[in-house]
Amino acid sequence: MDALQVAHAAREAATVLAAAATERKNRALDAMADRLDDRRADLLRANEADLEAAREAELAQNLVDRLRFDSGKIDSRIESLRTIAALPDPVGESFEARRCANGMEMARVRVPLGVILMIYEARPHVTVNAGAFCLKAGNASILRGGSEAERCNTLLGGLWAESLAAAGLPANAVQVVSGSHEEIGELLAMEESIDLVIPRGGKGLIRAVREQSRIPVIKHFEGVCHVFLDEGIDLDAGLAVALDGKCLMPEVCNATETVLVHRAWRAELPRIVQAFRDNGVTVKGGEAVREAVADVEPATAEDWRTEYLDLVVSLRVVDDLGAAVRHINEYGSHHTDVIVTDSESRARGFLREVDSGVVLVNASTMFCDGASLGMGAEIGISTDKIHARGPMGLQDLTTYKFQIRGDGHLMGPNRVSR
Amino acid sequence: MDALQVAHAAREAATVLAAAATERKNRALDAMADRLDDRRADLLRANEADLEAAREAELAQNLVDRLRFDSGKIDSRIESLRTIAALPDPVGESFEARRCANGMEMARVRVPLGVILMIYEARPHVTVNAGAFCLKAGNASILRGGSEAERCNTLLGGLWAESLAAAGLPANAVQVVSGSHEEIGELLAMEESIDLVIPRGGKGLIRAVREQSRIPVIKHFEGVCHVFLDEGIDLDAGLAVALDGKCLMPEVCNATETVLVHRAWRAELPRIVQAFRDNGVTVKGGEAVREAVADVEPATAEDWRTEYLDLVVSLRVVDDLGAAVRHINEYGSHHTDVIVTDSESRARGFLREVDSGVVLVNASTMFCDGASLGMGAEIGISTDKIHARGPMGLQDLTTYKFQIRGDGHLMGPNRVSR
Repeated sequence: MDALQVAHAAREAATVLAAAATERKNRALDAMADRLDDRRADLLRANEADLEAAREAELAQNLVDRLRFDSGKIDSRIESLRTIAALPDPVGESFEARRCANGMEMARVRVPLGVILMIYEARPHVTVNAGAFCLKAGNASILRGGSEAERCNTLLGGLWAESLAAAGLPANAVQVVSGSHEEIGELLAMEESIDLVIPRGGKGLIRAVREQSRIPVIKHFEGVCHVFLDEGIDLDAGLAVALDGKCLMPEVCNATETVLVHRAWRAELPRIVQAFRDNGVTVKGGEAVREAVADVEPATAEDWRTEYLDLVVSLRVVDDLGAAVRHINEYGSHHTDVIVTDSESRARGFLREVDSGVVLVNASTMFCDGASLGMGAEIGISTDKIHARGPMGLQDLTTYKFQIRGDGHLMGPNRVSR
Repeated sequence: MDALQVAHAAREAATVLAAAATERKNRALDAMADRLDDRRADLLRANEADLEAAREAELAQNLVDRLRFDSGKIDSRIESLRTIAALPDPVGESFEARRCANGMEMARVRVPLGVILMIYEARPHVTVNAGAFCLKAGNASILRGGSEAERCNTLLGGLWAESLAAAGLPANAVQVVSGSHEEIGELLAMEESIDLVIPRGGKGLIRAVREQSRIPVIKHFEGVCHVFLDEGIDLDAGLAVALDGKCLMPEVCNATETVLVHRAWRAELPRIVQAFRDNGVTVKGGEAVREAVADVEPATAEDWRTEYLDLVVSLRVVDDLGAAVRHINEYGSHHTDVIVTDSESRARGFLREVDSGVVLVNASTMFCDGASLGMGAEIGISTDKIHARGPMGLQDLTTYKFQIRGDGHLMGPNRVSR
């Protein structure tokens, strides 16, 4: 990869994209959806080869799971591309439009950011989502996935180029690259050519990107996500929420890692532990849990801070809502947290007090998800507070300009002598 | 200054402020306005001492101008504090509220960022504005002004502490500090305690902050601002706009630096040059200007990129709107740019094509200004594209969380066996 050439090609493509009609961008998204379907067999073959190599390299099972791009995942990407094509174009949208006291008309009008560099681990579906989101919001993207997914990602990069060209847009508007660490380092220094960096992956990757980058970074750190089962609920319904968050896709960042149980449920702890075990989940417990169920492994403070990404859960008994909130704000990662409650006042208290990007009442942590929230998937889930927090959708990939119209307005006296 | 102590005090204050009632924050703002009035004589004396020291140190005139905090400026700060108190509180505001297809209710709800560190040069009025904006948006602030303004800033810091305490808020919610470069460096490493850094000042200051900081930075770089005088306008009205931008406050970032003149006005160049000279402005000209007025100094490519911050203007003849836009996007700093035109289509073209934070039609560059735009002043004018661009108001000092309410929503099958 020639970093300079990639960056310049992206900048040129960004200029064209910024002015591209919505219809043309949508055509490229639809073309990509068609190609994912047409080239399904090739994609599955490329992914199988990536998976085979990963197994040979003895990658951890959760990494292999993240690498998988099976027919069901291809279908959901096709659906997501169609959804993104159908979403309103954020570019040109105006907000805070008003007439100022001095008679000037002003509005903030959304415009693309420009060029976005995305650095992520494995996950071929990100190559589809991230390219699609950047494109729809008028940005050129440079996508650098994990080397484990290289065969599949390279094929997807080719499909992006074809789809863009088919819509009359620059083929370089989405570039899938596989540069070395040094070459990525060069890109991270190009603050004149690249407007935003989004790293998604392990802590090490994200720290390295942030430390090297001269470009603004929106970090996508880990999710140590909680479910708090309040007193007075239908316990089975609450357990169903906790199990959904833990078991459906344990390898993703919005999977549930810690379940906090109101002390009112102390007598039910054996049943709670059993429900996890019935679903193949290893339970690590705080003191009260281990008093109730002797063979539960102890959970330490280290466990409360751990993103297992696996069929493991830590379980703790807390005294009340306040204790649950304190635990979450202290040990959590400010990502996604849930309360299951029948109390309106405790629901409000939880929504207000928990300092996380996404806070939910009576729904599983899996719903921290752009598709469920009507955003047509998401480019990632920001753990930063600056620019974007939580699931990032189309408008989060734009900036704005102030457009102001006056009528010869002067701030001071007229200085033209006639 | 003990950096650790300052940061911890700010974090503690931020927790209180995040939950503080609007009325209490407004009471602190009103108390500060009262104090500025009551202690006016002391403030003027402190500022006079700072100015005296600056003159003795032979500071450049534009720096001395930025340091001045006279009675008129105090009045406008008082007015600004009252305006900010009267503005709606952004905290708790929700946006994008909707019912999702699966029946969940969601909204993004604004919350404070937390702790904001502001590093700026001289300018005592920033000590008032920045503290007021951060406070109203529920953030604790650490304000580090230029050492030239230390007497005045220290006094203002005391007034902030009194005003906060009078409203029952933590006196440390606004901390005015005067740390050494090393101590500021320590603050810039405290990513756990500080959420955002806003540097305002010369390029060197901003670069140093960005290079040292582990915390997200919103940069406030220079303004190389343009006025384009289109063909077919009332030339006197256009000149009035250009002169207002150049002469009213040449030391500020939104002052006009370059005036582009449509070639249709070639015959009027002597009159245009004279209008600037009549107002004490030195004109540097491109080739066509110097052909028309022999004694005009030449402007080089370096001039087109220069923020004079002084009574100097560069003047260039351009062929048409397209040439004006190209000049602005190439040589400008993407800050604030103006077209004076009677053509609706060229106004639209300029608003669309110029890639700047603020683009205006028929109004002077001075109107890139939060007060004029109904924002009650501004904390600064961002030259970044991430998080905030152009004049930063209250909502630009907040982040949000997604609040979602379900009804026992599961993403997968119910895993509780009964």
